[in-house]
Amino acid sequence: MMSDVTIDDLTVAVLGGTGPQGRGLALRWAASGLEVVLGSRDGERAEQAAAELNQKLSQVEGAATVRGAGNRDAAAAADVVLVSVPFDAHRATLADLADALDGKIVVDCVNPLGFDKQGPYVLDLDEGSAAEQAQAILPGSRVIAAFHHVSAVLLADLTVTDLDTDILVLGEDRDDVAVVQQLADRIPGMRGLFGGRLRNAGQVEALTANLIAINRRYKTHAGIRITGQGL
Amino acid sequence: MMSDVTIDDLTVAVLGGTGPQGRGLALRWAASGLEVVLGSRDGERAEQAAAELNQKLSQVEGAATVRGAGNRDAAAAADVVLVSVPFDAHRATLADLADALDGKIVVDCVNPLGFDKQGPYVLDLDEGSAAEQAQAILPGSRVIAAFHHVSAVLLADLTVTDLDTDILVLGEDRDDVAVVQQLADRIPGMRGLFGGRLRNAGQVEALTANLIAINRRYKTHAGIRITGQGL
Repeated sequence: MMSDVTIDDLTVAVLGGTGPQGRGLALRWAASGLEVVLGSRDGERAEQAAAELNQKLSQVEGAATVRGAGNRDAAAAADVVLVSVPFDAHRATLADLADALDGKIVVDCVNPLGFDKQGPYVLDLDEGSAAEQAQAILPGSRVIAAFHHVSAVLLADLTVTDLDTDILVLGEDRDDVAVVQQLADRIPGMRGLFGGRLRNAGQVEALTANLIAINRRYKTHAGIRITGQGL
Repeated sequence: MMSDVTIDDLTVAVLGGTGPQGRGLALRWAASGLEVVLGSRDGERAEQAAAELNQKLSQVEGAATVRGAGNRDAAAAADVVLVSVPFDAHRATLADLADALDGKIVVDCVNPLGFDKQGPYVLDLDEGSAAEQAQAILPGSRVIAAFHHVSAVLLADLTVTDLDTDILVLGEDRDDVAVVQQLADRIPGMRGLFGGRLRNAGQVEALTANLIAINRRYKTHAGIRITGQGL
C-alpha cells in the first residue's frame, strides 16, 4: 500500500528520543532533510533535546529541524514511528500508545539485553523478540525491526560522514520494509537490507550483545556489513 | 595454555565432514597446508570424500592432503575438532565421542534451524545454543563456537580467492579463541574475530536464518563483516 511513497514526504517520530540511540538517529534524519518529531515521556525534556539537536543542525546545509513533544503527540504527528525506549519501558510505553500508533509503521530498534559481571546477555522473552512483543501489543500497527546495531557515538558525531554499516530490516510486508530501508539509506554510509521475517528478529536484536563484546575487546564502535555478490 | 601454539603444527578433524560445510572448510584448510582428517559416521564415505578433495587439492601448490576416517578415529587423531554435523545428529554424535574429544578444542559450527513454508526459523534449545549444548555434553572439552556463516558454495569453489567474510569466534578461553581465529585467518578473505562468550552463541548461530533470507531475496551467498575503526 505504500509502494509509491517516498520517505521524503513522511514525518518520522522517535519515541524515547532523548536516549542516545534515538537522539542520534533523529539528528541524522533531520540532517538529511526529514521532518522529525522527538518524543519523550516528558515533553519538556524532548523540547530541550530537540533544541540541542537544532543547534547542531544549524551548521548543516539542507537540514530540517527537530521538534520536541510528548510521546503521544509525537506518535500522532508521524507516519513512521521509531521506538527507541529502554527495554524495561517497552511494553508499557507501547500499550499506552496503541491507539496513537494504529495504522502506522512502527520501527522497533529495542535490544532486550541484561548486563552482569560477565558483560551483556540476552533476555528470554515469551514473544521471542522485542519486535514480536511490539506486534503483539500493537495488532493495528505494522511493526518493522531495524536499527539495532548503530553506534550512538558515531551517530552523534556529524564529522563522521560514513557510518559504514548495514541495517537489517525485518518485517512481513515488503512495502513497509522498503520504506524503512529508505530511512536507513538517508544516513551516509548506511544501507538498509531486507533481513528476514519478524520471527527472525530475536537474533538480530541479540547480536547487539556480541557487538558490545567486540567493542570492549577491540576498543571500537562495531557495525556490520553483509557481503555477497550483487549486494 | 596454548598461547604459544600456532595452528600450523596442529591436525584438524572435521566431524560430519561429508556435508557441504565441513567438506568446504576441510578443502580450504588443506589448501592452506593444514593436515586435515575428514570424519564421518561411515569411514568409507569419508575416505571417498577425502579422495575427491585430494583431487582438487592436487592443483594447489603447497596444499596438504585430506585423510578420511570414522568420526571416532578422526577425533582421536586431531588437536582441534570441528563439529559440522546436522543439528539432529548433534547431541548423539557428541555424546558418543565424549571420551575421544576430552581435553581438545571442539569448534561447533552447527546452526539449530528448522524450515517451513515461510523459510528458516530458530529452534528453541534448553541449553540456549548448539555450542552450549556441546559444552554441556563435553565437560572435558573446550568448546568454541565459530564458522556459522560461511557459504559452502563459495568454500567449494577454489576459484573464489576472497571469501570476504568475518568469522565470529566465541568462547571462554582467550588462548583457545586465538587458535580458532588462526583457523579462520588461513582461508583467503576470511578473518577471525572474538565475538563474545559462549552464552552469546545462540544469536550467532540463529543469524544464519537471516542470512538465508538475504540469500533468497538478493540471490547471493551472504557473509558478514564487522566494521569499526581499528578492526
